[in-house]
Amino acid sequence: SQSKKILFGDRGMHLEDEINESNKYYRGHDIAVIYKKPTPVQIVKVDYPKRSRAVIKEAYFRQASTTDYNGVYNGYYIDFEAKETTQKSSFPLKNFHQHQIDHLRACEKQNGICFVIIKYVALKRYFIMPATKLFKYWDGQKHDGPKSIQLSEIVNDSYEITPDYNPTLPYIDIINKLIESRKE
Amino acid sequence: SQSKKILFGDRGMHLEDEINESNKYYRGHDIAVIYKKPTPVQIVKVDYPKRSRAVIKEAYFRQASTTDYNGVYNGYYIDFEAKETTQKSSFPLKNFHQHQIDHLRACEKQNGICFVIIKYVALKRYFIMPATKLFKYWDGQKHDGPKSIQLSEIVNDSYEITPDYNPTLPYIDIINKLIESRKE
Ligand SMILES: [Mg+2]
Ligand SMILES: [Mg+2]
Repeated sequence: SQSKKILFGDRGMHLEDEINESNKYYRGHDIAVIYKKPTPVQIVKVDYPKRSRAVIKEAYFRQASTTDYNGVYNGYYIDFEAKETTQKSSFPLKNFHQHQIDHLRACEKQNGICFVIIKYVALKRYFIMPATKLFKYWDGQKHDGPKSIQLSEIVNDSYEITPDYNPTLPYIDIINKLIESRKE
Repeated sequence: SQSKKILFGDRGMHLEDEINESNKYYRGHDIAVIYKKPTPVQIVKVDYPKRSRAVIKEAYFRQASTTDYNGVYNGYYIDFEAKETTQKSSFPLKNFHQHQIDHLRACEKQNGICFVIIKYVALKRYFIMPATKLFKYWDGQKHDGPKSIQLSEIVNDSYEITPDYNPTLPYIDIINKLIESRKE
């Protein structure tokens, strides 16, 4: 008989939901304090109706200047961007924005633990690529290099995360490896 | 003749503006990467007019779950809340919210550098109180202790920041002291 493979971490959830759920687990268990940063919004007009809460009536999306997530784990500053793709191999670098790269570089200079989490939705595979590896592809592209990273390159330059039940995405396990490799 | 005292860091600015300006300086000089967290907003309705940018037409303020600022300095995770008061001595503890205390405690457990910056507007004095000291007053208040911290107590339990020109509030100098005192 065929064995049934239980697929954790994929209940049609988006990567950000999976990370948020994992962060909640990590916070609840005093393992790490990592949050998604709120979307920056420029608020122009607010109504304060009597006997009910304030309503923002006019506001605009502001350009973010950082990445999706940051926080602290065991004394280390953690900073990362989350990206998902429906592609099966090629991951277009245009998924990243210059301000995200600049921010990761600045945090890397300050000795933060900086990386990106990439989800291949169709493959149900998750990777953590250290920011320093990403910079290599990003800078290459600026100098006539390829505009995309191939899955084989991501496999080579990243750690794969195996989705689990609690937390959904046990990415702190990989952070431990990043910390270890930095000590070498 | 009387010597003229130049008061830096007080051009009628609010504490948050002074901190934001300092953070800009620190980022621009590769000293630290610290940002104010955006106000969390729950977006309900967005209009996408032709040939112009998206307008948020209905949104609500969400309860923040963290503090005002976080970031990284020289490998250390930095987390703090900024508060100003127009009082001349008594600083009411009700200026803090339970979620801010909880968040600072969680970050402290993860070995972050956690504190509050308190500005006495009328006195033009600025203090950094380590989170652990704040917890003492907060917990005291919960057990029939005073509902306010007095200036003399703040002086005792904090480091004073002298406003300057560039950056406006050189609070990284104090962070260095917090890091040093932790090593003892
Ligand atoms: Mg993202
Ligand atoms: Mg505040």
